[in-house]
Amino acid sequence: MSLKVAIIGLGSVGRGVVKVLSERKDDRFKVVAITDSKGAVLDDNGLDLKDVLKKKGNGDLARVNKSSLDVVKEVDYDILIEVTPTDAKTGEPGLTYIREALKRGKHVVTSNKGPVALNYQELRDLAKKHGVQFLFEATVGGAMPVFNLIRGPLAGNQITSIKGIFNGTCNYILTRMANEELPYDMVLSEAKELGIAEADPTYDVEGIDTALKMVILANAVLGMDVKLEDVDLVGISGVCLEALKLAGEAGMVIKLIGEVRPNGEERVLKVSPRLVPKTHPLAVQGTLNAALIQTKLAGEIFVIGKGAGSVETASAILSDMLYIASLK
Amino acid sequence: MSLKVAIIGLGSVGRGVVKVLSERKDDRFKVVAITDSKGAVLDDNGLDLKDVLKKKGNGDLARVNKSSLDVVKEVDYDILIEVTPTDAKTGEPGLTYIREALKRGKHVVTSNKGPVALNYQELRDLAKKHGVQFLFEATVGGAMPVFNLIRGPLAGNQITSIKGIFNGTCNYILTRMANEELPYDMVLSEAKELGIAEADPTYDVEGIDTALKMVILANAVLGMDVKLEDVDLVGISGVCLEALKLAGEAGMVIKLIGEVRPNGEERVLKVSPRLVPKTHPLAVQGTLNAALIQTKLAGEIFVIGKGAGSVETASAILSDMLYIASLK
Repeated sequence: MSLKVAIIGLGSVGRGVVKVLSERKDDRFKVVAITDSKGAVLDDNGLDLKDVLKKKGNGDLARVNKSSLDVVKEVDYDILIEVTPTDAKTGEPGLTYIREALKRGKHVVTSNKGPVALNYQELRDLAKKHGVQFLFEATVGGAMPVFNLIRGPLAGNQITSIKGIFNGTCNYILTRMANEELPYDMVLSEAKELGIAEADPTYDVEGIDTALKMVILANAVLGMDVKLEDVDLVGISGVCLEALKLAGEAGMVIKLIGEVRPNGEERVLKVSPRLVPKTHPLAVQGTLNAALIQTKLAGEIFVIGKGAGSVETASAILSDMLYIASLK
Repeated sequence: MSLKVAIIGLGSVGRGVVKVLSERKDDRFKVVAITDSKGAVLDDNGLDLKDVLKKKGNGDLARVNKSSLDVVKEVDYDILIEVTPTDAKTGEPGLTYIREALKRGKHVVTSNKGPVALNYQELRDLAKKHGVQFLFEATVGGAMPVFNLIRGPLAGNQITSIKGIFNGTCNYILTRMANEELPYDMVLSEAKELGIAEADPTYDVEGIDTALKMVILANAVLGMDVKLEDVDLVGISGVCLEALKLAGEAGMVIKLIGEVRPNGEERVLKVSPRLVPKTHPLAVQGTLNAALIQTKLAGEIFVIGKGAGSVETASAILSDMLYIASLK
């Protein structure tokens, strides 16, 4: 029996998920509903995913008049894939979708940082109460595995801290500034042209995106109970070229580093530009993300990968879906 | 009900496993047998692990007169932890222990590269036939997860190639030579004094250890059917200081790189010193291991960690044990 899947959101990540599922021909999953802001496409026998993608591209996708919330509440599915955009202040509309699905006893997989950063404990407890999974590998590091790495391969290891580069836009800007000796504004303009930075880059360059990820890691991996306001936060807009040059001369680079460590007096929850030796595994270039997971037995484990991208993020969502399928 | 565990071998890795299990107080596992070359200690109700370690250290461990093979064949256990030393030519004595345990329908977890490199297909089929697990995370990369990373977090991704640094001794030697501008012989002597290189370092510096790991990855992850003789192999003893200096001037380092790629004409199975840009994530220093796993969806995933060490290797064994426990 296949697991019935409902996908809420058909932006970049949603289309990536549909594309990946359409190419897998994996009979463990059957997509019965897809929604976007204009309505829903439904088929309890399984949608033709290639057809949906094509019509979405051509602008002639025939939707029924049902909202995402209608679908979340009414359609018969086993796994909700919630891939609407992040709202760091309210978590909506994703938060409501996730809450309603969990209350109905449905598994939830999301790439949406807002609800996880804002309401992790509530949603975890709701999932537990209803005996379902609430998974969010795609919220941190895109294709770079973090939660699934800790749950599986690092199982049995106590995690004592997590530190790294969790925003590809900032890493791209700092890498270009350092390598080409170009000023911040110029590189930011270039990044916008390339689609690496948003038109309004505040969310990335001021470190809010990284801070949200630190909150998720703190709460979901390290057993803390913190909010976005608790993060000691400095972005990269104040990093001048001179500082990067001086760092370079000393064999260092400057990176926007997020760090979370729960323990007592040395408790750390911060995001800020920091010096990293060029030879350190965290000194990765371009849009790469990198995480240093400090463990009790295995010592320092580094994982590096693409932090964004439609198919890469879909890969993280797929790994959560496969975990759910493995539990049956 | 706990899983009964028999540990074959009480060298560095075996002691690491006993230490880690003694500190976890995990009632999913009960160690009922431990053997070394002098005999066995047995207790069907669970051995006092701290006491075993202490007495092994003091040289007054009271063993019964049973060989490792006797224990493998006769004792009532669920998981065999096979941690005897690697013999690259015959795989013995580990190969026989593993084969006998699998034939009895027991799970096997090993850190022993010989049997996996030599007889992977036979042992995999035997495990399948008897419905048990044959796991060997500790054979490649020590604490650095590879097999469990691919099985769990990267599930759903087709792996197209694996490449990296899989021998900490070689990496230490090449790093010291490059950073300190010291000749090979001098650094090798130093590494021996520090216990980073063996008295006879041939196995590491000639690339045999890395080649065995490539054979394991080729057969177990990439679906190939290859032997040690198939590896295109060059070690690091011919790397001169001048080459490292020239590389350094060009922004590169020289690393002993193992690479395996199964596909058609571009098929690769080789171990050799190669140039790596200093800024590349594989350019890790000291005794670290690093792997680049090329995937279809997630793109390039890098994982970096300690490739050796008693507790680190035990961590890899523990992750395999926990996977088996999760299947119950």
